[in-house]
Amino acid sequence: MKTGSEEKTGRIFNFSAGPAVLPLEVLEQARDEMINHHASGMSVMEMSHRSPEFEAIAARAEAGVRKQLNASADYEILFLQGGASHQFAMVPMNLALANKPIDLINTGVWTQKAWDEAAKLAVVNIAATTEPEKFRRLPRPDEIKLNPNASYVHLCSNNTIAGTEWSDFPETGSIPLVADMSSNILSRPVDVSRFGLIFAGAQKNIGPSGVTLVVIRKDLIERASKNLPVILQYRTHAKEKSLYNTPPTYGIYMVALVMEWMERQGGLAAVEKKNIEKARLLYDAIDSLGFYYSPVEKKDRSRMNVVFRIQGDKEDLEKKFVNEAAAEGLSGLKGHRLVGGLRASIYNAQPLEGVKALVDFMKEFSRKNG
Amino acid sequence: MKTGSEEKTGRIFNFSAGPAVLPLEVLEQARDEMINHHASGMSVMEMSHRSPEFEAIAARAEAGVRKQLNASADYEILFLQGGASHQFAMVPMNLALANKPIDLINTGVWTQKAWDEAAKLAVVNIAATTEPEKFRRLPRPDEIKLNPNASYVHLCSNNTIAGTEWSDFPETGSIPLVADMSSNILSRPVDVSRFGLIFAGAQKNIGPSGVTLVVIRKDLIERASKNLPVILQYRTHAKEKSLYNTPPTYGIYMVALVMEWMERQGGLAAVEKKNIEKARLLYDAIDSLGFYYSPVEKKDRSRMNVVFRIQGDKEDLEKKFVNEAAAEGLSGLKGHRLVGGLRASIYNAQPLEGVKALVDFMKEFSRKNG
Repeated sequence: MKTGSEEKTGRIFNFSAGPAVLPLEVLEQARDEMINHHASGMSVMEMSHRSPEFEAIAARAEAGVRKQLNASADYEILFLQGGASHQFAMVPMNLALANKPIDLINTGVWTQKAWDEAAKLAVVNIAATTEPEKFRRLPRPDEIKLNPNASYVHLCSNNTIAGTEWSDFPETGSIPLVADMSSNILSRPVDVSRFGLIFAGAQKNIGPSGVTLVVIRKDLIERASKNLPVILQYRTHAKEKSLYNTPPTYGIYMVALVMEWMERQGGLAAVEKKNIEKARLLYDAIDSLGFYYSPVEKKDRSRMNVVFRIQGDKEDLEKKFVNEAAAEGLSGLKGHRLVGGLRASIYNAQPLEGVKALVDFMKEFSRKNG
Repeated sequence: MKTGSEEKTGRIFNFSAGPAVLPLEVLEQARDEMINHHASGMSVMEMSHRSPEFEAIAARAEAGVRKQLNASADYEILFLQGGASHQFAMVPMNLALANKPIDLINTGVWTQKAWDEAAKLAVVNIAATTEPEKFRRLPRPDEIKLNPNASYVHLCSNNTIAGTEWSDFPETGSIPLVADMSSNILSRPVDVSRFGLIFAGAQKNIGPSGVTLVVIRKDLIERASKNLPVILQYRTHAKEKSLYNTPPTYGIYMVALVMEWMERQGGLAAVEKKNIEKARLLYDAIDSLGFYYSPVEKKDRSRMNVVFRIQGDKEDLEKKFVNEAAAEGLSGLKGHRLVGGLRASIYNAQPLEGVKALVDFMKEFSRKNG
């Protein structure tokens, strides 16, 4: 079931929703450079964040993200800490304007968490929600009621728990669109110029946990009051090129390596092509075997988090599926505890071989238990 | 100048103030476990933070810190993000009481930064300051004027820039004492029960940057308003055992390895003994060679950050010192840009051989340039 270097090193196929699989090449490079990075005589972990060696690494990470995202000079690329949950607080602190509501499109747990935090600072207008349908689809354009007076519009581009993903984004005119792209950033091309701010925890497609990517349009940086804690103002980090305080240096190094790996894959276009192929293989198996089903409306299915169930929602059989798959080296297939069922997260670094192995297992399992 | 395995791997002696040298054994272990941790089939970086494998690692880190600190069950050990700079905001947000001042003992840049943030939320009472003396000593007990009505007292236990370190702490009675121990935590035994809250960025004595240790007395956890952003409340992280959101998993793993390394060294008592020896060697050279001097009052000299100058404050000669030392594999000896001069940071992981090599270099340099 395992091939090539995966077999050699005893690695399994990891379908965890995040932290998630990283490219083996990147891990091998990190291993080889661990004790003595590029003849510096030290590990990246030991480098002063003010040293030329680390500054070069941070510049590689920034240039890599900027290139893969195709972000213009109108945007700052920041590497912060605290993950998306921290951004749920930081975004309204910095971008909410006095006496203006925040528009939020509610598509699952992650937008609900953002809503809770935004509501501590401003009136939140739910521009659309698919909660009555258990988030199994995204709102249609005609269902989204934006407030022309909003400070900004918040959405989540890919919902790991519900398994939905936006393929196009609502037009918000002059109102900044803020997107939590934690779970599908750099998996498909996105027109950055349509966004005021994009944030993402690194631990799906960009690197290890502990690094938070923020891409912010420069004119928005100055919105926040200078009375906010200095560490919670985007301007602090923009001014100091993410070096106001000690950044998560090793995580930023890993981001640089992942971006360079993406480039070697042929860049974002090639990575997207592989992601389409992987998702197609998996959804085809779900749709065609007559044993599984996807609860998600077809047009909104996520390419990153493939949520599925065994027909009849047979929980015992789903548990058996998870356990037998794990025994065969296919790990992390249990659905999120809030929705149950099964889920295969197939981020950029998930090899095609992993998806093929999963599809083979699904066929075999359905044959034996169908 | 280099010995044993250091020589083998081309590693240099790194006197950086942080991120700083890590134990070579720990880096070797991390390297060996990078691709496939304990036959899990994956890297620690790829593990779900909700997996039993990662939970076991987080438990090792927590137990290790608790043991080395000798912290009782009255204290929670939390692994957060954002570093000390983030705690400068989070501490007053959580611990400042309405209409009560915050007492602050000003001993340098790091307490000044904490002061700036505290002043956004409360009146700050400077209980003592040695700023008029350029922070070259710490306040004497009789100089410290505590306010009996304070929310808490803030101090910094070791000042990396000035090169001062508290050897005993002021008695604050029932007022919680908060200490920024970023740069000397676990370098010497400290009676945790005298503190309400201790915080420390990991990147000196505990692990890599990107992990922030918070040790908080349990009764203080509930002080904060629940209207604070949920991610900025200590109660959130205490309730969820630092797993409210995705933690910096790899950094926490490194903390576990560093704590296990400390235990193998003989624990904190043995580590302190080595630290005393290293500091003694270095200060003896500074005091005895007649070429260098320490600007810091003797009783307050830091064992972690040895700040020194060439007599006459000869900046050209100091620059030459830094460059020639670097050429000999002794890096990071430039003083902080705010004070100039020279600085050798000799945290726990700095080998005795590194300090001996530096002392040899200092002798040679003084002979040639004296």
